[in-house]
Order: sequence, then structure tokens, then C-alpha cells
Amino acid sequence: MELTGDILAAIHIPALDEAMGATVAKYVDNLTKPPGSLGRLEELVIELGKMTGDAFPEVTKPGVIVFAADHGITAEGISAFPKEVTVQMVHNFLNGGAAINVFSRAIGAEFAIVDIGIDAEMNESGLISKKVRRGTGNFYKEDAMTREEAIQALEVGYEQGIQMIDKGVRCLILGEMGIGNTTPSSAITAVLSGQEISKLVGAGTGLVSEGVLHKQTIIAQAIANRKPDANDPIDLLAKIGGLEIAGMAGAMLAAASRRVPILVDGFIATVSALLADMLAKGASDYMFVGHQSVEPGHIVAAELLGKKPLIDLGMRVGEGTGAAVAFPILQAATLVLKEMATFASAGVSTN
Amino acid sequence: MELTGDILAAIHIPALDEAMGATVAKYVDNLTKPPGSLGRLEELVIELGKMTGDAFPEVTKPGVIVFAADHGITAEGISAFPKEVTVQMVHNFLNGGAAINVFSRAIGAEFAIVDIGIDAEMNESGLISKKVRRGTGNFYKEDAMTREEAIQALEVGYEQGIQMIDKGVRCLILGEMGIGNTTPSSAITAVLSGQEISKLVGAGTGLVSEGVLHKQTIIAQAIANRKPDANDPIDLLAKIGGLEIAGMAGAMLAAASRRVPILVDGFIATVSALLADMLAKGASDYMFVGHQSVEPGHIVAAELLGKKPLIDLGMRVGEGTGAAVAFPILQAATLVLKEMATFASAGVSTN
Repeated sequence: MELTGDILAAIHIPALDEAMGATVAKYVDNLTKPPGSLGRLEELVIELGKMTGDAFPEVTKPGVIVFAADHGITAEGISAFPKEVTVQMVHNFLNGGAAINVFSRAIGAEFAIVDIGIDAEMNESGLISKKVRRGTGNFYKEDAMTREEAIQALEVGYEQGIQMIDKGVRCLILGEMGIGNTTPSSAITAVLSGQEISKLVGAGTGLVSEGVLHKQTIIAQAIANRKPDANDPIDLLAKIGGLEIAGMAGAMLAAASRRVPILVDGFIATVSALLADMLAKGASDYMFVGHQSVEPGHIVAAELLGKKPLIDLGMRVGEGTGAAVAFPILQAATLVLKEMATFASAGVSTN
Repeated sequence: MELTGDILAAIHIPALDEAMGATVAKYVDNLTKPPGSLGRLEELVIELGKMTGDAFPEVTKPGVIVFAADHGITAEGISAFPKEVTVQMVHNFLNGGAAINVFSRAIGAEFAIVDIGIDAEMNESGLISKKVRRGTGNFYKEDAMTREEAIQALEVGYEQGIQMIDKGVRCLILGEMGIGNTTPSSAITAVLSGQEISKLVGAGTGLVSEGVLHKQTIIAQAIANRKPDANDPIDLLAKIGGLEIAGMAGAMLAAASRRVPILVDGFIATVSALLADMLAKGASDYMFVGHQSVEPGHIVAAELLGKKPLIDLGMRVGEGTGAAVAFPILQAATLVLKEMATFASAGVSTN
């Protein structure tokens, strides 16, 4: 994969620290509980050991970055909400009233909201302005963006990720706001998986059944029109992607390159994760998937990524909410390691 | 159902506040997210509204009570751990080094550990001594306890539940420590469900396959020997039950009678929940199940209770750990209601 962006070209993903994983696994077996009885929490903390290289890995404080952008393909009537909602919801994020604000506060997260491509002028205080362009092109009729814009959006995301990590964040959650963004996500998942659109596209944020059929038709035709290269993540972003999808992928590359665990949200974020791993092999080694989205494409995308979501609560709001709600589970796993007694220290018989 | 215990006889479970549930449901639909898009979190907060009668229900602070007791049936070799581990683990709880201590601290819970039937003299500071008897009888050969002892254990649990609620606890989690206690739990589940023992009994805390077969044989024969009445929860506790199982059921009755939501842990606690609902119809209206245990009997028990666990992390440690790890999800649901903006307050278009 050629990368023309200077930042992207320099990204190096370190190998997992397998020795530290083995050290943590051995220590976990000495904690005062039947072997393996903490189930997935044990697997999580071993993975965290490999990622961070720490015998007692930490995930606090977490950081949440929400990337907001618009989608030209909303002109084709593929969303239950009007495009204006992107701007309105960004105001809501800035005022702290959206679901992701609530869950970010609950987990004590650093929070940032980035305009990476909203189709409106916004200069509100608190909004990080990194607009690459005013929304994507309608990829039913034209490319979503140029290759240069895709690379620029990835690099914006990377820089935001690095800034968050430099604030002391030990676990990164990426969220998005972009009316219409299940459409590019479904399109990318279809190209990467080779699966039928009809198996990937559901109700989004609330379409009725004729709307779903229309959305499926538009996506299938858009892919046929654009002919993206399934092996080229920049081409996928440029032809059928989204600016916030690129931004999240870039931030994930920042986290993976710094050995910071990534808690991936639902469908849109998992598509970003797939692209990040194509851009820099091994990036997905630093990822967990937080929540299984209701959107059928997410099951396929999570399988492609090779990750089983931590929770399944029927959420489909995006914004990073599923990951933020799942975060306390990851934190609980780290606390097991830090705070539980060993059989020897507690004087408990092992058998 | 006759109840000879004065406390139990006086228990009244209030009806759910359906009107408040409707009020909360309507409010949830005005929050700044696509309708229904917070999935199960929306259902949870509507249920909490019905339970508590509050338009903005709270679940903090939570309370965790762990009931510890021994089981005579360990003499039949049905557990991977020796009986002495019950005492050792109670020391571990008192020192704060067990898994439930870690997770209780993480959620800011009030914590209590109650000796309701440990087969040893324990007078340690911090341990609430309410021993009904030193362990149950070996119910392969004799009744686990008398009816009077079963009622006494239920009343101990009820009193501990009330004391916890009087400390300001708004959500109750019950845990247990008792080497061998999947055996009475499996026996009770078999009698209540009519299902084959072979479909209910798994590895417990770590049996190998011959051990599982032996455990299944012992349980089937013990049920045949004791002939408990499937319609009489006191008879089930007396003939094939456990003191901590009764204690947890009693504490659940306290919570339900005071409209305090109960977050039920895995297999053992779900069996207590089934008995609590038989003792006072409607008690299960105040229950959520936190975690799906690996133990196969739990799937059957949770179905009998009519509840779908919130998370499934492959845990099988007991102690209340699965519920405590799931608690932040319940809390997140309450925060949505308290902190999210409405479409009107945020100026977001609904369609």
C-alpha cells in the first residue's frame, strides 16, 4: 500500500508483547477465583498486557473523540433524518446534552468533538475545526472525495488521536456524527466482505421497510458506478467513504502506534477499524469491539475484523456510545489484576 | 403458600407503577437520539420507572450482600474445591481481596458479608454473624435443613436486605460463597423446570468430565431420595436447598417490598430469585438479571424467571460478581434520563 501522506507513511505499529501476555496470564491463574472463572475479563486483561507491555495495564482515563461530517448521498433519501441534524447534534455535543456526553462523563473521559467535514460554517467555541471539505460528494453520482482529501482526513484523525494520548489517555474511543453515514459504511462493508447489500443494510437510525429497500438499491448502484478497489483503503474512502470514517481510522492508527488500546464502537467505527488495519497491518491488534450494533452490517464487519463485541444491548445510536457503555467492563478487567489477592497472599487452598 | 415466619407472612410486594413506566417511555422518546436507538437501555429505564415510581429513577448507591454457608453434600465429592475454601474465602472477603470486593469498590457499593451457615466458628471483625446452623445436611442422605431453619434463613436475609436499604441503597446485589452450592441450585432448577439433570449440570467452578457425571448422578439420586414439593419453596429449601440460597431470597423479598431494584447475579442467585417469586408473587417484577453464567442450569433458571441477562462474559465465579460488573449498564440507563437533552431543549429536528 502506497501512502502519499507524510504522516501516514511514517506510521509503525509495534508487535504485541506476547511475553507480557504470558506473564499476565500466569498471574491471573494465581488470583483467588477458580481458574478461568472470570471468563472474558481474563482474556481482556491478557490482551491489555500484550498491547501495553505493562504487567498491570491501565485504561483510565479514557478519551472520546467524536468526528462530525456530512454526506452528499443524503440527497438520495437514504436517511430517516434530514442532513441539518448533523449541525444540530454538534451543538448538542457542545452543550453536553447528547448520549455520548452522558456516557463520557460517566466514565470520566476526556472528550473532543471535531468538525472534519460538516456542510456548514461552524465556529463555536469548543469545536475543533479541521474541516477537510463541506461534506462528501454524492457517491451515487460522483466520488465522495479525492484521494488527497481522504489522506488529509486520515491525518487530521491521526493528529487528534495523538493529542488525546498526549493528554494522558490510556484507552481511545472514537465516535461519529454524520447523518447518512451507515450508507458509506454499508458500501465499504459490502466491497470488503463480498456479501449482498440486502444482508448488510438495516433500518439505520429508523427507516421503514420501503426506505431500507431504496437504500439497498442506491448503495448497490453506487458501488457499481464507483468501482472502488477492495484492496486499497484510500480508494475506498475516496470513492464511497466518509470524512468522519477516515478521521476515526486515522485516530485508531495513532493509538495503535502508541500501544494505546482502542475500544471500537458499533458499525461505522468498525468500518474505520477495518480500513485502519488495511492502512497499517497490525493496527487491529490494539482493538476491542465494545458493542454489537443492531445494524446487520456490523456483524459482518466485526467478523472481518476478527473481534467479538463485549456487549449487545440493541443500541444503534452511534457517537461512540456503545464503546463508552462497554468501557467499565474493560476497566473491571484491569482492576481484577491490580486489586485481587492471590491464593498465596490470601491463604486459600487451590485444590 | 403458608408461611409460619412472622416476617415472611407480613411481606407485601407492591404492584409496578405502570403509569410511571408510560411517563418515562414518553420522555425517553423526546431525548436527542433516534427513537429506540438506545435499545435495552431504554427498556431498563422504563422498567426502573415502574419499579421505583420515580420519573428519574436512581440506582446509586448500590449495595452488595454476600451470604456465606457450607453444604453437607460436599461429602459426596461434587466440588472441585475442598469445603475449607468457604472459610478461607470469607477471610479474603473481609480483607478486600476477592473479585466481589474489587467490583463492589469499582461501583461504589455498600458491602456486607454475612455468615448464615458456615461450618466453622468465625468471629472475625466485619463479619455479620447470623449462623442458622453449621452447614446444611448432606441432602443425598438427609434433608438439608428443617422447615424452621429454612424460614429462619429467609428472615435473616430479609433483615439484612432491609438494613442495607436503610443505609440508602437504591439497587441491591446479592452474592454467595459456599463451596458446593451449584449442586443444590441445580437440584432446585431440575425440580422447578422438570428438565433432565444432564442438561443442567456443567463444570461448576472447575470439574472435569467424570466429575460432572458423578455430580449429575448424585443430584438425580438426591432428588429421588428427598422428593421435594415443586410448589413449595420452603420444602425445596429444606430438603435440597442451601442457607445462602435462602438468605439471598430473603434479601430479594426485602428489596421488592421496598420497591428497590434487584440486580440478580448468575446461577445460584437466579435460583434464589425463583424461590423469592414463589414466596411472594410479583417479587420478580423488581429484578434484572446481570450476567449469563456459563453454568448450563442458569439459562434454564433465567428463562423460568423470564429475564434476559444484561451481559454474557463467560464468568462463573459467583459472589455477586456478574451483577456488579453489569451494574454500570443499569446506571448508564438512569443517566440517559437525567442528563440527556430533549429534541425541544436542544433544537434538533425530529424528522
